[in-house]
Amino acid sequence: MNKVKVVVAGPRGRMGIEALHLMKNTENFELVGAIDRVNEGKKISDVEGLPAIDAPIYTDIHTCLTETKPDVLVDLTTPEIGRLHTKTALSYGVRAVVGTTGFSEEDLTELKEMAEEKGIGCIIAPNFAIGAILMMKFSQMAARYFSDVEIIELHHDRKLDAPSGTGIKTAELISKVREPKKQGHPEEKEIIEGARGAEFDGIHLHSVRLPGLIAHQEVLFGRDGESLKIRHDSYNRASFMSGVELCVNTVMNIDSLVYGLENIIE
Amino acid sequence: MNKVKVVVAGPRGRMGIEALHLMKNTENFELVGAIDRVNEGKKISDVEGLPAIDAPIYTDIHTCLTETKPDVLVDLTTPEIGRLHTKTALSYGVRAVVGTTGFSEEDLTELKEMAEEKGIGCIIAPNFAIGAILMMKFSQMAARYFSDVEIIELHHDRKLDAPSGTGIKTAELISKVREPKKQGHPEEKEIIEGARGAEFDGIHLHSVRLPGLIAHQEVLFGRDGESLKIRHDSYNRASFMSGVELCVNTVMNIDSLVYGLENIIE
Amino acid sequence: MNKVKVVVAGPRGRMGIEALHLMKNTENFELVGAIDRVNEGKKISDVEGLPAIDAPIYTDIHTCLTETKPDVLVDLTTPEIGRLHTKTALSYGVRAVVGTTGFSEEDLTELKEMAEEKGIGCIIAPNFAIGAILMMKFSQMAARYFSDVEIIELHHDRKLDAPSGTGIKTAELISKVREPKKQGHPEEKEIIEGARGAEFDGIHLHSVRLPGLIAHQEVLFGRDGESLKIRHDSYNRASFMSGVELCVNTVMNIDSLVYGLENIIE
Amino acid sequence: MNKVKVVVAGPRGRMGIEALHLMKNTENFELVGAIDRVNEGKKISDVEGLPAIDAPIYTDIHTCLTETKPDVLVDLTTPEIGRLHTKTALSYGVRAVVGTTGFSEEDLTELKEMAEEKGIGCIIAPNFAIGAILMMKFSQMAARYFSDVEIIELHHDRKLDAPSGTGIKTAELISKVREPKKQGHPEEKEIIEGARGAEFDGIHLHSVRLPGLIAHQEVLFGRDGESLKIRHDSYNRASFMSGVELCVNTVMNIDSLVYGLENIIE
Repeated sequence: MNKVKVVVAGPRGRMGIEALHLMKNTENFELVGAIDRVNEGKKISDVEGLPAIDAPIYTDIHTCLTETKPDVLVDLTTPEIGRLHTKTALSYGVRAVVGTTGFSEEDLTELKEMAEEKGIGCIIAPNFAIGAILMMKFSQMAARYFSDVEIIELHHDRKLDAPSGTGIKTAELISKVREPKKQGHPEEKEIIEGARGAEFDGIHLHSVRLPGLIAHQEVLFGRDGESLKIRHDSYNRASFMSGVELCVNTVMNIDSLVYGLENIIE
Repeated sequence: MNKVKVVVAGPRGRMGIEALHLMKNTENFELVGAIDRVNEGKKISDVEGLPAIDAPIYTDIHTCLTETKPDVLVDLTTPEIGRLHTKTALSYGVRAVVGTTGFSEEDLTELKEMAEEKGIGCIIAPNFAIGAILMMKFSQMAARYFSDVEIIELHHDRKLDAPSGTGIKTAELISKVREPKKQGHPEEKEIIEGARGAEFDGIHLHSVRLPGLIAHQEVLFGRDGESLKIRHDSYNRASFMSGVELCVNTVMNIDSLVYGLENIIE
Repeated sequence: MNKVKVVVAGPRGRMGIEALHLMKNTENFELVGAIDRVNEGKKISDVEGLPAIDAPIYTDIHTCLTETKPDVLVDLTTPEIGRLHTKTALSYGVRAVVGTTGFSEEDLTELKEMAEEKGIGCIIAPNFAIGAILMMKFSQMAARYFSDVEIIELHHDRKLDAPSGTGIKTAELISKVREPKKQGHPEEKEIIEGARGAEFDGIHLHSVRLPGLIAHQEVLFGRDGESLKIRHDSYNRASFMSGVELCVNTVMNIDSLVYGLENIIE
Repeated sequence: MNKVKVVVAGPRGRMGIEALHLMKNTENFELVGAIDRVNEGKKISDVEGLPAIDAPIYTDIHTCLTETKPDVLVDLTTPEIGRLHTKTALSYGVRAVVGTTGFSEEDLTELKEMAEEKGIGCIIAPNFAIGAILMMKFSQMAARYFSDVEIIELHHDRKLDAPSGTGIKTAELISKVREPKKQGHPEEKEIIEGARGAEFDGIHLHSVRLPGLIAHQEVLFGRDGESLKIRHDSYNRASFMSGVELCVNTVMNIDSLVYGLENIIE
């Protein structure tokens, strides 16, 4: 089997470093280059903190794609740069796996057309954690049979926003498949304000913040006589790499745009 | 909308009583009769412990089906009787929802032919708990992405067998989709025998037995940096009724045999 | 060993019936009578729904205590009646185990004096669930070492108030031992109002309400690198009886008033 | 308030590095030196990977204690070295906090005599994780009221031994306070061998091993109608530092030997 030749953009970011390690440690991947804002002309192994890989670093994506002829660009940069890189990659006939957010509807339409015209795959995945994606997918499925659901998300206490993005996204996915429903006793009363949590389309969300915690979420379903709980624990960034690996393998076998890891997981 | 006319067989069993209450309390169901070993000629409301429903009790299934002309027979008897009832119902053109086990491959083939010939539905569901079915279904789906999994099932301490039937069935379903794999450290050592639990195709199962507990199961998946847990708690028999309700509604719209609730849940 | 002779007041209430069963099934207890608003002159076994115990029922506490000469009165009535019963019992030299609330500071002072003067025990226990008491006790102990804590209490969706009484009591107990502290990021922001739950002295409480659930609580502690969780699940009223049993045995060996089961648990 | 002057032995080990950071970041501690096998004459800040602290490194404990005059020696070396260091420290009138194992009964007696003679404290703590200590302490307390208990410990799949040391220690502590009892149904049957786990004095232990997990333990108690669960999650080595901090503060106020963190936690 031929190895998949990969270029990583954003190699010094926290996700980027993990991705370099993934490329190094995965048999059927071969890292052929990296795109960085700095370090032009150096090898990856020359940069402190990066793994010992011989591949060259480029600051210009055109030169990089022309010289390294990769199968796939893995972009882990920023929304602005990521959008440019994705379009450029597709225009060169290079498949793209993109971990940034911020694509507009128009962007997606344009990228879809480009991908289909070239007959190559492009996957945009704002969240690479397969476990989190499965939790959301299962929650949506369960909501068809359990119309009562509450979400508890638990994070370290340096997190600013509550509820978390994943918590809200889970509620959105659930509310798409169930009738809007106000849960709890119709006359329920908060003795202390906020006890029943945040409400999103009748779904209650609770945000726990404690030192020591990392990133966790429980989705609880209840109906007469039984309850069902789906819990995801994310301990560190390594959890994203399984998603990157899945995307790189999948993008080689599709010929259009996919937005969201949930759409390539069956 | 016309109500679905139902006959319940086995009305005095623990599941049967719950089913009578379900029929009484569900708008679009109408209980038109019951089949019992005794109580011929009585009304359901005449029998102590049964709910106040006026419908007649029959000891003979033929008389019952002829006189009450039900849409669906809900059978909650015993394997032996259940098999006879199912065939008889189908031969009368009455759809069947069957909660007993013990059907052979031949039985299923014969029932499938009967159902399809008559163009009516028949659902055989050894387990009516939707939450438990979802737990198993999600576990199987997750196992494609998380090849490492352990099962912990927890029951009251009057339970004789370990692991539980649901625990073993979950392991079976998982082992169908993942490569056989021996989990844990290759050189792991039990300092006290049994610590690593039971093994089924490389999947470890642990059975907890404590007074107070009812019927619970956790399926734990792990991969680098993350874990995923699916937990089902069954508190009482009421949890089965949502499955019976789903089956009665579904059996009206299918024209063949379905074995297992997991096959009508999407 | 002599059996402890017990009178139960409030025998037809939900707690009362459980207590009758406890007396019947516990070797060293002997039920010698019951105090009820009605059923004067009947035996307990004469009343529908009560267990087959031969002991007489009295509507008048004075007659009851004079004729049955119990060691202990177990009172499971109402706050108003319970207060009267307790004083009357102590005045007769009968030890009391009381499951009602609503005693004022003055009541407690008076009862303490009465108990000590007679040299007999009296235990007032608004909550008989040993597991719940332990959860609260452990939470208070843990709070000395983990100053960050959040409480999640989960109940069926017919419950009106949020947070639950046990949830608030747990927060009170914790706030007695830790410095008041506002948890979470100082600049944390609720994207949806209520996400961070109710606040009691800087402790966050979250109330989950779902059908199927019974009465559950989790107390979560976090500090750098670790978390500690204490969870109690109450499945049914039987859980209170272990507390009643403990109280009856303990009240025989003390000679003053104890308020709260937490004070007889070491 | 005077700062507590501390010397750390074993500064380059994984615990040692954490301890250096603790000393640096804790207001009332002052690191005055370190004892290392190598690096004589260097400053801590000179050694790669160690934090920027100016204090000198010594290879000889005698020189170190004489020159730096610390209040406390924190020893995080090996059993053999730790034993020597502890005795030497006490002989110099320096209090000791020791994280190593392997002390014999005779060692402990000798150290106790030395500490009391000098009127200074010495704390030997094989486990510095306060959360784990609390879990064990609470489990032992709960076992007096809940005689049925099972232990589930969950670790990453690179762990060799099952059950874990903490799991076995928890069972030991519990078995000290409860009557030996064989749990589960007397006629329970393992359909697959090992399902009921390891047994220690009638207590069942279950060891889960999955990638992604770190170090977790649940102690489950059950009795009629209720269950109680105590769970500890250890995410990283930082969790030990709260125990070191507690020990350094406590050792300043005691004048004898304490073995085990559980004995200074109330």
